[in-house]
Amino acid sequence: MKVRWECLKKDPGSMARLGRLETPHGTVETPVFMPVGTQATVKAMAPYELEEMGARILLSNTYHLYLRPGAELVAQAGGLHGFMAWNGPILTDSGGFQVFSLGDLRKIKEEGVEFRSHIDGSKHLFTPENVMHIQQLLGADIAMAFDECIPYPATYEYAQAATERTTRWAQRCKAAHTREDQSLFGIVQGGMYKDLRTASARDLVAMDFPGYAIGGLSVGEDKPLMYEILDHTTPLLPQDKPRYLMGVGSPDCLVEGVLRGVDMFDCVLPTRIGRNGTVFTSSGKLVIRNAKHKSDMGPLDPQCSCYACRTFSRAYIRHLFMAGEILGARLATTHNLHFLINLMATLRRAIAEDNLAEVAACLLADWQRES
Amino acid sequence: MKVRWECLKKDPGSMARLGRLETPHGTVETPVFMPVGTQATVKAMAPYELEEMGARILLSNTYHLYLRPGAELVAQAGGLHGFMAWNGPILTDSGGFQVFSLGDLRKIKEEGVEFRSHIDGSKHLFTPENVMHIQQLLGADIAMAFDECIPYPATYEYAQAATERTTRWAQRCKAAHTREDQSLFGIVQGGMYKDLRTASARDLVAMDFPGYAIGGLSVGEDKPLMYEILDHTTPLLPQDKPRYLMGVGSPDCLVEGVLRGVDMFDCVLPTRIGRNGTVFTSSGKLVIRNAKHKSDMGPLDPQCSCYACRTFSRAYIRHLFMAGEILGARLATTHNLHFLINLMATLRRAIAEDNLAEVAACLLADWQRES
Repeated sequence: MKVRWECLKKDPGSMARLGRLETPHGTVETPVFMPVGTQATVKAMAPYELEEMGARILLSNTYHLYLRPGAELVAQAGGLHGFMAWNGPILTDSGGFQVFSLGDLRKIKEEGVEFRSHIDGSKHLFTPENVMHIQQLLGADIAMAFDECIPYPATYEYAQAATERTTRWAQRCKAAHTREDQSLFGIVQGGMYKDLRTASARDLVAMDFPGYAIGGLSVGEDKPLMYEILDHTTPLLPQDKPRYLMGVGSPDCLVEGVLRGVDMFDCVLPTRIGRNGTVFTSSGKLVIRNAKHKSDMGPLDPQCSCYACRTFSRAYIRHLFMAGEILGARLATTHNLHFLINLMATLRRAIAEDNLAEVAACLLADWQRES
Repeated sequence: MKVRWECLKKDPGSMARLGRLETPHGTVETPVFMPVGTQATVKAMAPYELEEMGARILLSNTYHLYLRPGAELVAQAGGLHGFMAWNGPILTDSGGFQVFSLGDLRKIKEEGVEFRSHIDGSKHLFTPENVMHIQQLLGADIAMAFDECIPYPATYEYAQAATERTTRWAQRCKAAHTREDQSLFGIVQGGMYKDLRTASARDLVAMDFPGYAIGGLSVGEDKPLMYEILDHTTPLLPQDKPRYLMGVGSPDCLVEGVLRGVDMFDCVLPTRIGRNGTVFTSSGKLVIRNAKHKSDMGPLDPQCSCYACRTFSRAYIRHLFMAGEILGARLATTHNLHFLINLMATLRRAIAEDNLAEVAACLLADWQRES
């Protein structure tokens, strides 16, 4: 089966929607945050912990898995689901963003992107066709088209050329993608130029993908500009297809994205800052190493019900970070993922209960506070 | 309450005993392996995981916790049990071995040991009296006397002086220890000299501790010598008190120790080698990074029922280690601790069922094989 998204309810006061995404590996309520398991593991987490905290769909990465351990090995293990022992839905990014991020190590051509491995410097070529082949071997429920991410800032000419190439690559991806139990999403590019976003969305929508991502945001622009581009772009996408804002995961951006009609998000932010000892709380970010938490016997966030907050004090978690203990990274990661998953549940409930405007305003105000 | 050990059964063919250790935080069946949580956390593990795998008593460390986060803070958090959220029994080592291991950074005097912190070079003094004070603040169920570990090799004169000092320090520890819900164990030293072991055991037994550790083994001597000293020492200890062999945790040594009448063991080996990617299996040690495991879809150990073996392949766990992922360290640690805990359960069952000789021979033979 292919994925199918159903809109359950539209928020009357915003672009937000409540929906249900059906996939070969189960159903996901949207809007949803997808924890990132770049190398077939959400860093520091075990699959059952993700399930327990309410994660319903994970993201993994074509670029990293292609290089290590190799897509054939993953296929041999029963695909990503078997390999990493996650029986829920999975989405794989195409590697477009990762090879773009390699900077001097990659060269973009019409055929595809030549790049050198960040692991051993070996030379490789990603084309729309072989990226589809790799993603089909990985076997996620949702694969992403191979795209070219546009840096910020970029000239109009650069952005236009990259956007048009992304469209041509999307056509090649669609032609090359054959796996019946996997769905291919298109990625709208266009940089910060609204007419390019319009053209990209128009061309991709004409190809009739089962879902659409908005790529190339959160790449260095400030948040008002990101929201402006989002305001412009989501209305260009079909009402009956899921919309996925790539690489965005700070609590305020999730709220703002949902208000603008986004259904899916992913980001390494909660896991990355967690491993460094920064946690989300209902009153803003908290840096656990700060001396003021040294003898604080309260939880990371008094409003949180995650394993870390139910079980341990700030004083203990700070000790774990000061002592370089792995459990510190585990607890902060658990907390941050739980925080975002819970935030999305709050937003879904608010849409269902017709009080999204009020709930969103509270969440955004809370987030401005200093913890 | 103080701890109390009851012998349930003596093995007719060896020195092995089946017993039950009652502590203020619950009962422990012996012989038992105690996972080590040096800095108030068993590295890479959460408390509920230890409980699930059958760990019943943990070890933590006076030296490390005194330096960071400080014993007063731990006391303020409700002692180690509250601080690390482990409601089962805990034993704290006295720091004698750790300050001894500092080498040039410490100076041994009759009063105690002057040392410099391995963290910031600051100067400190451990005496029998203040080590008792610290351990009482930490609040473990079992505290250890402050001892002087003897290097291997050591001259007779050196070993004799250190052994006699350990005895004097044990007396000072006993005089300084007052906490009613904590029990103080003595530590037999004597190096590799049987007459010194005899003298040490005799003097400590005269002080009537509720339990006795054998220290200063597994410090560089070969295994036959260690077993010889054990053969000599355990018969010198009371039949009705628990015997604890410190710092010993390889599977073969656990079997040999049980056969020689040891009831308690601790060692960082399973957690340390686990984090480096080496795991115990029923057919010997296995180095998971080895290329031969690259596409092996079987578990670490087909005979194991731990979470890692029930859920993941060698290929996946190898990938985690090659990619530097924390989950790799978690899974290998889980497996190694489960392996030793299960080994001890097997030995206890064998004593109960009167087939220890046979079971021990099988375990030792299996362990010689190459995985």
